[in-house]
Amino acid sequence: VLRHWDKVRTIRVALLGLGTVGGGFVRLVEREHARIRDRIGLEIEIAAILVRDREKDRGDVDRSLITTTAVDVIDAGCDVVVELVGGVHCAGAYVRRAINNGSHVVTANKALLAATGRELFDAASANGVQIGFEASVCGGVPVVRALRRGLAGDSLESITGILNGTSNYVLSRMEDGLPFADAVKLAQEHGFAEAHPTLDLSGEDAAQKLEILTSLGFDSEVVSRSVHGIEWIDVDDVARARRRGNVFRQVAEARRVAGGVALTVAARELPLAHPLASVRDENNGVVFRGNAVGEVMLTGRGAGSLPTAAAVLSDVIEIGSA
Amino acid sequence: VLRHWDKVRTIRVALLGLGTVGGGFVRLVEREHARIRDRIGLEIEIAAILVRDREKDRGDVDRSLITTTAVDVIDAGCDVVVELVGGVHCAGAYVRRAINNGSHVVTANKALLAATGRELFDAASANGVQIGFEASVCGGVPVVRALRRGLAGDSLESITGILNGTSNYVLSRMEDGLPFADAVKLAQEHGFAEAHPTLDLSGEDAAQKLEILTSLGFDSEVVSRSVHGIEWIDVDDVARARRRGNVFRQVAEARRVAGGVALTVAARELPLAHPLASVRDENNGVVFRGNAVGEVMLTGRGAGSLPTAAAVLSDVIEIGSA
Repeated sequence: VLRHWDKVRTIRVALLGLGTVGGGFVRLVEREHARIRDRIGLEIEIAAILVRDREKDRGDVDRSLITTTAVDVIDAGCDVVVELVGGVHCAGAYVRRAINNGSHVVTANKALLAATGRELFDAASANGVQIGFEASVCGGVPVVRALRRGLAGDSLESITGILNGTSNYVLSRMEDGLPFADAVKLAQEHGFAEAHPTLDLSGEDAAQKLEILTSLGFDSEVVSRSVHGIEWIDVDDVARARRRGNVFRQVAEARRVAGGVALTVAARELPLAHPLASVRDENNGVVFRGNAVGEVMLTGRGAGSLPTAAAVLSDVIEIGSA
Repeated sequence: VLRHWDKVRTIRVALLGLGTVGGGFVRLVEREHARIRDRIGLEIEIAAILVRDREKDRGDVDRSLITTTAVDVIDAGCDVVVELVGGVHCAGAYVRRAINNGSHVVTANKALLAATGRELFDAASANGVQIGFEASVCGGVPVVRALRRGLAGDSLESITGILNGTSNYVLSRMEDGLPFADAVKLAQEHGFAEAHPTLDLSGEDAAQKLEILTSLGFDSEVVSRSVHGIEWIDVDDVARARRRGNVFRQVAEARRVAGGVALTVAARELPLAHPLASVRDENNGVVFRGNAVGEVMLTGRGAGSLPTAAAVLSDVIEIGSA
């Protein structure tokens, strides 16, 4: 009702990676493309897909689109390149090439943005293309848009969040009485944790996401960075906190200090009435404190195939509608 | 860091109304304009202001901008007309004139959008201008952007929210043991409720906001609309619910049903673990349930001078940056 379009436009998408999120993206486009065409006037066409293993079973995916040669996909002349291979080195080379080709880029790759975001955004600007990265922080929860757009009129005081679903799932299971190692194993069995969940449990994953939000929300430089994991917490610590009416959460926080912004990631004991205490299991939550708006909180599923794919698709739609 | 601009652009704003939100908008622009210019490359210039009473004290506001003649402001050739006079008749005429002049419009006026939104959006589309209305639902909480942009890639199943801060404040005070009439009086004393808070307590205010969100989130027509107030709730009902571990909330819900979407606004008894049970006092909260993303919740201050002004300003910035 509130959108208008005259003529259906087509946006051609080159997809790099057909793993958890990439596979979810293909399924979601398949399911939603008719609705998006009818409602927004945008036809989304996946024109080429890069995979690592050509022989692997890909279900319903059109095999004629699949290749193992990255340049064939990146140079296919698509409007937007969706980078979902992860990692920093290959992904960075792919994204740079796409930008130099004049393609827009959408990525879920927080490690890449944390490592080389400034350079990539400069290159995108010089080439007149956009980089969409809603999926890089908190999966399906639109925190990047909330910060860039919704809070654009306000000065930010702090960002406080639960940005790592694996750690939060582990701490939630420890509240149920499970020892740390068993909780980690359960997270792995449920697919919330990698085989080596070091980045998650050490706080580094949350710190990378916090850096992305900080660069969006604050004008000043990061002057300190303190990152601690949750491995030191014992199930008895959690039980003792519980008796005091508190819960443990891995809290990532960016806060204005003299000379800039201080980043901390640490396990903290929070009272049950704290907004982030209500974020449970594999969920994520972020509280933005603005000078004018006060506290605005967003919560939801911060990872997973379809939630993350929905964030990727929202960026593709926004680029296609511009 | 993540934004780029070559040359500062100026966006000229005509402001209609200098009441609670209009006054907040002027203060916020005064406070934030240098930051916005330096960061986004957008200079916001308030060029003309419509007031009802020329003689009233307006504090620091530049009196040379103030007039009581609406057409002088609307026809001042501004890029965007910010409508904050409220009501339906005058405001509608102003907005239509602004659109016909080729100005973009930003409004916080939910009643206007609920009554004539379709016509206004058609006119805006025909004239190639935008209507920004983030401030019309949930004040400073960016629910409109979350729905239009963040969840654009997903099919929505339901919208469930606490959309009226006055009712929520009254119910929160009744949890403290205050009878209904005293809780309403306290809300009025704190400025959360109008002198005649009928629209708030009857559920109509929440229903108007729900209609705006529904038109954004669903493709299908509204096939039923059931709106009930909170006046029937007694402080003893609240105490009894409390003993069962529940709380009362005025819940607005849009849900897919056979043939379309059903809207309901009603006081409901929610378990304490329900996400909306944690929304207290004058706050608002909305849970969007999407097919792919699951539940995404946004909470924060749904009204007030500066939070609402920040939402208005975010729309002005987005229009100016396009």
